[in-house]
Amino acid sequence: MSNKIKIGICGYGNLGRGVEAGIAHCPDMELVAVFTRRTSAFQTKSKVPVVHIDNANEWKSKVDVMVLCGGSANDLPVQGPALAKIFNTVDSFDTHAKIPEYFNAMDASAKSSGNISVISIGWDPGLFSLMRLYMGAVIPSGKTFTFWGKGVSQGHSDAIRGIDGVVNAIQYTIPSDSAMSRIRSGENPELTTREKHTRECFVVADNEADKGRIEKEIKEMPHYFDEYDTTVHFISEAELKANHGNLPHGGNVIHIGKTGDDNNQAIEFSLKLDSNPEFTSSVLLSYARAAYRLAEKGEQGARTIFEIAPILLSASSASKLTKDLL
Amino acid sequence: MSNKIKIGICGYGNLGRGVEAGIAHCPDMELVAVFTRRTSAFQTKSKVPVVHIDNANEWKSKVDVMVLCGGSANDLPVQGPALAKIFNTVDSFDTHAKIPEYFNAMDASAKSSGNISVISIGWDPGLFSLMRLYMGAVIPSGKTFTFWGKGVSQGHSDAIRGIDGVVNAIQYTIPSDSAMSRIRSGENPELTTREKHTRECFVVADNEADKGRIEKEIKEMPHYFDEYDTTVHFISEAELKANHGNLPHGGNVIHIGKTGDDNNQAIEFSLKLDSNPEFTSSVLLSYARAAYRLAEKGEQGARTIFEIAPILLSASSASKLTKDLL
Repeated sequence: MSNKIKIGICGYGNLGRGVEAGIAHCPDMELVAVFTRRTSAFQTKSKVPVVHIDNANEWKSKVDVMVLCGGSANDLPVQGPALAKIFNTVDSFDTHAKIPEYFNAMDASAKSSGNISVISIGWDPGLFSLMRLYMGAVIPSGKTFTFWGKGVSQGHSDAIRGIDGVVNAIQYTIPSDSAMSRIRSGENPELTTREKHTRECFVVADNEADKGRIEKEIKEMPHYFDEYDTTVHFISEAELKANHGNLPHGGNVIHIGKTGDDNNQAIEFSLKLDSNPEFTSSVLLSYARAAYRLAEKGEQGARTIFEIAPILLSASSASKLTKDLL
Repeated sequence: MSNKIKIGICGYGNLGRGVEAGIAHCPDMELVAVFTRRTSAFQTKSKVPVVHIDNANEWKSKVDVMVLCGGSANDLPVQGPALAKIFNTVDSFDTHAKIPEYFNAMDASAKSSGNISVISIGWDPGLFSLMRLYMGAVIPSGKTFTFWGKGVSQGHSDAIRGIDGVVNAIQYTIPSDSAMSRIRSGENPELTTREKHTRECFVVADNEADKGRIEKEIKEMPHYFDEYDTTVHFISEAELKANHGNLPHGGNVIHIGKTGDDNNQAIEFSLKLDSNPEFTSSVLLSYARAAYRLAEKGEQGARTIFEIAPILLSASSASKLTKDLL
């Protein structure tokens, strides 16, 4: 019997496949099964069993932590509380406005069964949120700015794909270098939405479609594009596949504040990710380790990233970390 | 009776004065006294009582957390274990090689009296160490690089001041932009000490002194300068006071690793500090808050930054942090 942490994955999209790939980098973990809502059979890359989610209860004693890889809009609000009754869980629930409600649902489920559920883990929410807390705690008289990109926004890409005559599309969110420079210089500017980010769209249109109309519909789309300076490029499906197939992303959290009489102190955290889903998966796995350890200590209920001591994330011992990293 | 966290400061140098200034930015804290080894009377900026360290025991019930602001070489190894028997403490002990030994001494003292001692808090060791842990836990197949500066190194400045004919000196450590760019690009270079940082010295010499000899002695000084490209400028005392009176510092921790098949993931944390001692003081205060809360929960013994859950640092409630920052 292996003493590795036994991981289950629920949902086998980009994120689930990223978790599967990430486990190969964690010698203290092993993947035991993938759980799915799908009824048609499929095989996973690592050839672990594929189990229908309705039969999850049969795996209760065989999975230490279930990594929930469903979507925040429809999957997690249902799957999360249901699976937290069976397993310790970790997820990347990212609908900011609904996090308090989701926390309460997960907390009730996890407590009812004596499990631990670590919610809203990833890079934003997740590491960026964590950095906002550290920065604000250390320099309380300061202001935190967040920039996203350059990277693909799935939501904005989907919104373009919904326009009549559009075959496919990828949208990049691009942070303004000049806005970031102004902040770093200590200027503390009031920035409009338009000044912080621009949007660049690569669109494959139907041969018949009116490109002028598509471009206008994109640029004027409420909430998604109307408050931004947006550039639209029409390209072929072949070019889209060749040059825009990855899902890069990243961003910067910048905190500027003063101490003493008038000394500027600047703290910055940034990510530059070739693969957004693989990075999110890696963060999920480090918090799966924390969930396992909290459960071992007998803790119960939901936790956010703020409540997890950093040492719980590392596979190394306290004395090794003190010696090597402190 | 105020319900603020009652802070004591031991040591009234740059760091102690920084803590005093920092408390003004923390509405949940108040400074109650400054403790000192000095026998001559002095007044603090905030006019709190100045107490000789030999009488610290009389303040046991009046101080919630003692912030130890002595030096790591001579003060803390003695004052730390002695004061941990009386108070909860937080310190910035930064002699890397001796941290495990210091941890054990502080742990024994704190446990003997039921106190909490949070050790080696600042930015390096401290926040940089913390970032190395997070980065390595999230992307385990990666490598972490640390760069320091641009900033004043007190140790190197002192080393120059020890040279015959030198009246005063300030030494800046400067990170190599090109080395950082190579790392960020995913190149994973093997960098020599010389390739990572350069050193720039501003020296006030005696009128009589041989500047050529001083410059040679600086550049060839073992450990401090001989492995670096060093520039030496001779300036007047007036110019030194006017242009080099602050203690700026900062640095970058960069972690690069791969996930999946071949995707580069880059994480970076950076500080740009107008005042190194004031920033360190601010970090100490946020961990003083954590020490207070751990003590309130009845925890005992020494802790490193790795063991402190981030939520303990913030003056805000869990629900407010979840709503505002997550």
